[in-house]
Amino acid sequence: MADLKPSLADLGEDELLSRIIPLMPAGESVIDNGDDAAVLPARNGRIVACTDVIVEDRHFRREWSTGSDVGWRVAMQNLSDVSAMGAVGTQMLIGLVLPAQTPVAWIDDFARGIAQACEHAVSQWMKPVGVAGGDLSGGEMIMASITALGDLEGREPLTRAGARDGDIVAVAGTLGYSAAGLALGQAQRIPDRLSDHWQDLADAEGDAAELAKYAWHIYRRPQPPLAAGRRAGLAGASTAMDISDGLLRDLGRLARTSDVGIVLDSLPDLSNLELIASLLGKDEDAASRAAAWWLTGGEDHALVATFPPHVDLPQGFSRIGQVTGAGGEVTTPDHLGEEAPGWDHFS
Amino acid sequence: MADLKPSLADLGEDELLSRIIPLMPAGESVIDNGDDAAVLPARNGRIVACTDVIVEDRHFRREWSTGSDVGWRVAMQNLSDVSAMGAVGTQMLIGLVLPAQTPVAWIDDFARGIAQACEHAVSQWMKPVGVAGGDLSGGEMIMASITALGDLEGREPLTRAGARDGDIVAVAGTLGYSAAGLALGQAQRIPDRLSDHWQDLADAEGDAAELAKYAWHIYRRPQPPLAAGRRAGLAGASTAMDISDGLLRDLGRLARTSDVGIVLDSLPDLSNLELIASLLGKDEDAASRAAAWWLTGGEDHALVATFPPHVDLPQGFSRIGQVTGAGGEVTTPDHLGEEAPGWDHFS
Repeated sequence: MADLKPSLADLGEDELLSRIIPLMPAGESVIDNGDDAAVLPARNGRIVACTDVIVEDRHFRREWSTGSDVGWRVAMQNLSDVSAMGAVGTQMLIGLVLPAQTPVAWIDDFARGIAQACEHAVSQWMKPVGVAGGDLSGGEMIMASITALGDLEGREPLTRAGARDGDIVAVAGTLGYSAAGLALGQAQRIPDRLSDHWQDLADAEGDAAELAKYAWHIYRRPQPPLAAGRRAGLAGASTAMDISDGLLRDLGRLARTSDVGIVLDSLPDLSNLELIASLLGKDEDAASRAAAWWLTGGEDHALVATFPPHVDLPQGFSRIGQVTGAGGEVTTPDHLGEEAPGWDHFS
Repeated sequence: MADLKPSLADLGEDELLSRIIPLMPAGESVIDNGDDAAVLPARNGRIVACTDVIVEDRHFRREWSTGSDVGWRVAMQNLSDVSAMGAVGTQMLIGLVLPAQTPVAWIDDFARGIAQACEHAVSQWMKPVGVAGGDLSGGEMIMASITALGDLEGREPLTRAGARDGDIVAVAGTLGYSAAGLALGQAQRIPDRLSDHWQDLADAEGDAAELAKYAWHIYRRPQPPLAAGRRAGLAGASTAMDISDGLLRDLGRLARTSDVGIVLDSLPDLSNLELIASLLGKDEDAASRAAAWWLTGGEDHALVATFPPHVDLPQGFSRIGQVTGAGGEVTTPDHLGEEAPGWDHFS
């Protein structure tokens, strides 16, 4: 009987490209693609650019994440970096390494995940977001490297330098849920493995099983607050930063770059994260586990920003602390324990 | 005794970054790096962008190529794509995957290779070229994905569409030497393994051993004619294209995109390639081996372009054929044999 599940080895490179390119939106470009390079609009004389890499068995596992989850995630990581500069994303370029035995269905699904991320970004920014080009290669494991380009719409970029004594520290987006989802997976307490079922946080509050589904979803499909970067820029934020290595580690970088101190004095209610943590062990550990997820879990890609004290926080932001003094230190309330490090890719 | 050769596992990510970033030029940017994304100048309202991936044991072997060879090659591949649009390169973003046991010396050397490529590009374009950002990850093999950005300097982009009946087909740069170098390596006839000795083609003519050194050098460090794209644009070329998959295969794409026929009627003297081929076997095979390298070897990254018949070919270009009629076919002289396919990354 014929094998009905073709792998990459059954297709040529040209055939694969002609199959997946139409699955993704092209975004706005000056010339049609198919040339050596794309030619893209770049307004106001400047462009935002960043790169992020995702590697099989490091950042995702094929038994936990579908192709579209992986496409979504790598696109979101990059678009979140663009947003953190106060910009909106416009185009992505994708370097994709695939083992010959990769099922074609997985690759189609990856392209669909990128397309879904673009669609979501369009809904946040109300501007075209697409894929301008890329390159394919064989390799021993799946690896995707995305470069995202963005448009500041005439605004000045938000950087990590510029926080001042008295500024408010605020966060947009979820924090700790991706780390909670990963912990559920590692403990083999995955609520609904590889399901695409989306559970809204609002529906889940107070129900541990529903919250676990939500965390598992965020782990596979982070929901960075893409519109928050532009809002922060319009509101006059003094700094902004994507949280990718954990709140404490990334805030530490911001504090050192701005040469300020930061005191986290207004922590949110962590009871939802505690409910998830309670699924993993004894209740007495749940509070510290939840705090660790919130302080050191980075892969939600929340946005942290500082605002001058007179500014009304834009929609989606919640105050978590204050800029005070100098020195580059981040101080947490005693009950949250010692500063825990974030993620290091090699240690 | 202490191990004096540290590997990546001995360094943290931050330490590695603070070590390699200063090795590479920053190019022209609006803000200093260290933020979530770079902010780059983009003149004339448009920007050129492309991505290329290089994978260990697919595109290079660590026993054949040094870190700086690999850095040089992946940078050159990308800058050549930018040049093929008639543009000059401005910035690169690097996605780098490294096994934990990668020697730190290899990574330093990779960064130096990127820096050397930037330096060479500056000498060709007389404009700043640098590294605007990147991302690092662990993985089972070395993989580098580079996105290059470029500036059209106000010119219209050169694409693969636009060749017209009567246009001259011309090539700039070497063709077939990278394939010859690879064949020497595969036959274990490597002239001067991992030597950085640069042998100029002019000095090597007529001497098989010197030509073999030259081919081995081009395999490890391709020398794309970076200035040729801008020259073609200024001269009024109707199309241009980087030859990365072999002249016949890439010209076939150009012919189909422009819906023209191409006749290769002015082939160069291939006696230098034949001399190299004679090192690999019986003399009677040397001519066909040399022709195959020239027609199907892509990794020299030569530039092919078409010019209206009244145009004086710019410096560095040699006529190889003519555009004639329609249909997308490329015709070679009978004595060169059947059309051979170029490189497919998965078959």
